[in-house]
Amino acid sequence: MARVTVWNEYRHERESEVVAEVYPDGIHAVVADALREGGHEVRTAILDEGPEHGLTEAVLDDTDVLVWWGHAAHDEVRDAVVDRVHERVLNGTGLIVLHSAHYSKIFKRLMGTSCSLKWREAAERERLWTIEPSHPIADGIGERIELDEAEMYGERFDVPAPDTLVFTSWFEGGEVFRSGCCYRRGRGKLFYFRPGHETYPIYHREDVQWILDNAVRWATPTEGAAAYGGNRPVDPPES
Amino acid sequence: MARVTVWNEYRHERESEVVAEVYPDGIHAVVADALREGGHEVRTAILDEGPEHGLTEAVLDDTDVLVWWGHAAHDEVRDAVVDRVHERVLNGTGLIVLHSAHYSKIFKRLMGTSCSLKWREAAERERLWTIEPSHPIADGIGERIELDEAEMYGERFDVPAPDTLVFTSWFEGGEVFRSGCCYRRGRGKLFYFRPGHETYPIYHREDVQWILDNAVRWATPTEGAAAYGGNRPVDPPES
Amino acid sequence: MARVTVWNEYRHERESEVVAEVYPDGIHAVVADALREGGHEVRTAILDEGPEHGLTEAVLDDTDVLVWWGHAAHDEVRDAVVDRVHERVLNGTGLIVLHSAHYSKIFKRLMGTSCSLKWREAAERERLWTIEPSHPIADGIGERIELDEAEMYGERFDVPAPDTLVFTSWFEGGEVFRSGCCYRRGRGKLFYFRPGHETYPIYHREDVQWILDNAVRWATPTEGAAAYGGNRPVDPPES
Amino acid sequence: MARVTVWNEYRHERESEVVAEVYPDGIHAVVADALREGGHEVRTAILDEGPEHGLTEAVLDDTDVLVWWGHAAHDEVRDAVVDRVHERVLNGTGLIVLHSAHYSKIFKRLMGTSCSLKWREAAERERLWTIEPSHPIADGIGERIELDEAEMYGERFDVPAPDTLVFTSWFEGGEVFRSGCCYRRGRGKLFYFRPGHETYPIYHREDVQWILDNAVRWATPTEGAAAYGGNRPVDPPES
Repeated sequence: MARVTVWNEYRHERESEVVAEVYPDGIHAVVADALREGGHEVRTAILDEGPEHGLTEAVLDDTDVLVWWGHAAHDEVRDAVVDRVHERVLNGTGLIVLHSAHYSKIFKRLMGTSCSLKWREAAERERLWTIEPSHPIADGIGERIELDEAEMYGERFDVPAPDTLVFTSWFEGGEVFRSGCCYRRGRGKLFYFRPGHETYPIYHREDVQWILDNAVRWATPTEGAAAYGGNRPVDPPES
Repeated sequence: MARVTVWNEYRHERESEVVAEVYPDGIHAVVADALREGGHEVRTAILDEGPEHGLTEAVLDDTDVLVWWGHAAHDEVRDAVVDRVHERVLNGTGLIVLHSAHYSKIFKRLMGTSCSLKWREAAERERLWTIEPSHPIADGIGERIELDEAEMYGERFDVPAPDTLVFTSWFEGGEVFRSGCCYRRGRGKLFYFRPGHETYPIYHREDVQWILDNAVRWATPTEGAAAYGGNRPVDPPES
Repeated sequence: MARVTVWNEYRHERESEVVAEVYPDGIHAVVADALREGGHEVRTAILDEGPEHGLTEAVLDDTDVLVWWGHAAHDEVRDAVVDRVHERVLNGTGLIVLHSAHYSKIFKRLMGTSCSLKWREAAERERLWTIEPSHPIADGIGERIELDEAEMYGERFDVPAPDTLVFTSWFEGGEVFRSGCCYRRGRGKLFYFRPGHETYPIYHREDVQWILDNAVRWATPTEGAAAYGGNRPVDPPES
Repeated sequence: MARVTVWNEYRHERESEVVAEVYPDGIHAVVADALREGGHEVRTAILDEGPEHGLTEAVLDDTDVLVWWGHAAHDEVRDAVVDRVHERVLNGTGLIVLHSAHYSKIFKRLMGTSCSLKWREAAERERLWTIEPSHPIADGIGERIELDEAEMYGERFDVPAPDTLVFTSWFEGGEVFRSGCCYRRGRGKLFYFRPGHETYPIYHREDVQWILDNAVRWATPTEGAAAYGGNRPVDPPES
């Protein structure tokens, strides 16, 4: 069981009727409910929740894993909050980055690259193939999951080569994409998961929720990743 | 410029009229000609060239990079020759493993895994997407190459995660595959390249030949990978 | 809790009084006791336990993680048993390889390289530094552990680059060594752990036992790594 | 042959007599001379060379590989210049980061982590062991190089796991450090090389110069890493 904070930009859902039909209470509500069913202790936070976007030090003190969804308002996330989240991840807080959050400030900060990709909105078929069947995030998933209608994301995805590539997507229109990417940054674990989008009910799917639950468990910091490290002068070890 | 030996099982071409039409002098002849045009010094060897399959110590002494194609007769390659090639690769000789040679003794030996995969012969469209555009093997290739008719290979490809994943294939029928995989084993460099098959004229393609040429250059041992190492007792470095 | 089988060559302990003083009931007994205290269900097996070295199909059916120690009699392990263990690991059984077992048949088989290294027996000081503090195998360990007297193993260690490098050793005499190396092979997880040796009481140490317990937990197969895969023809996914 | 720009903070050399004795014309002058002898076309640039620190667009247009040394004035490098260099690296320009530049803005930006480490100034012995003897940066180096007097850098070095670990250092006082780390970021190649320091004549050494020359060759962009990519919508590939 992890203490999870699901963060959502939460703009599309309030501005578009099409999106509101799919996620009437916001994407965060659906993801949070799914993780609660998995036994986690879950809170949510949104962009418009005050100047800290709901991510106060107190909230982060109480967060093992942060789930992040954003799309249209990445730039409105204040740098001070990005700094704070960045520091937390380097100190062990897990981070699950969803779909269009590939372009969030926090993901780009942690990757050090442009995080650009190709895309197409054509409600096309996507198949996520399991590349590492024994990875905990693939636990229980089988050889693939299939989404009838998805936005396409295509390579070249400009990220560092993942420490572990768990899923790769196939798209009806002819592209492939590294859809499930694990990274270790500092003492934190980070998982980028491609499926999503505000106009498709993808986070309502049981298999997608299962993967998110696996990812939260995987990203939960171990107790022993105690705070040491830091830039500091040292004497020789006593011998 | 590298000294290259292109090894071919060379059975399909002599036994099947269909294959002979595509590769009248054998797959090895087409690959060797292409590499010669790239400026390399190329010889060929085949399974039925004596008890050492043409891979004598003298031939291997004169080989920087070995290209390997096999399919129907993997088991006829003698273990002593596999041992010899294995030792050469660990000591620096480059190895390019083509298509169905994923199931060759030498590739399985170097991977340590089953190297199994899924396949389908349906003359379907394949697109190889460049995942690492700055890798030397992708040099000059652009974002993808496209093969009109190919045999499908699908994940789960049971190999260790490649040191660098250069290409990933998309198949019309719905699968993906890690099609260009780099490995370092001992002091040798190894590249697995998926495209091929005896009934499609894939090795006649200019873009495929270009990739093979890039791969040979990449796999050529550096002069400085001097022979040290080995299991041996040592005194402390003189201080 | 995992079902663990600790396998030991168990020759030094019976042939050398010096070794017998350190490990009167064998290295396997000490390691097994330590893992039992961690809550695991542990059995042991030895080289001289019949033609299958105690590793029958029934024993392996009941094993989640296999711990392997060998040194002087690697060659006496029958190939049929190595084949069997190899297949098990590829299908998910965890494997912990200790110290001089770097030269065991099963480790060399899984690595595909020579696994050679340099060594020196000079009872010198070793420090294992934690390279990845947030890795589960480093959980609770802190920045280093220190062994007063150890056999030296030095680079170049001829193995594939580990998927994750958890520990690196420093030796008084001037060498370094990648001492804690994680690999995924097939659906199995493998951890090579350097410390050990038959003449030093290293497996009696609490910190070393803690790491072994962490490693067993990490290597335990997930339930969901269901048996799929294999080399097989397929039809296109139904669309 | 590459077009190289050696960038230096160039403060210590002008402010400290001790440093000026080791590097009277600056560290950049010594490194530049060494690379010129290797046949490269080399220019230098320094922090105090105008508001762009000598790294104008014109200079970068004419640069294949940028070498970076900084220590005391990382914060004085303007963010606009860091942005510019960052974009260049992601588009293919090679980057060699030396010693205390582990804490430069550009390195931290590309790594996404704190890049912190431990250090000690005790003029102690350092041995760099070659971990990957067949890597082009280790070409001609042999199993180790030895520095009589060096500043110690010790793990935990808070960087992402390198794509390839080429060298690991041993220090007399008891620490280890990943001293030669290769990364691919975007289309650029990056090499972090630990040895250095302003008060030791390390960049005057022939073996260190040899490694820098190897690193420049390795980091030089391939011609074919043509500018594609970018975040952009696409139509399906024509079929």
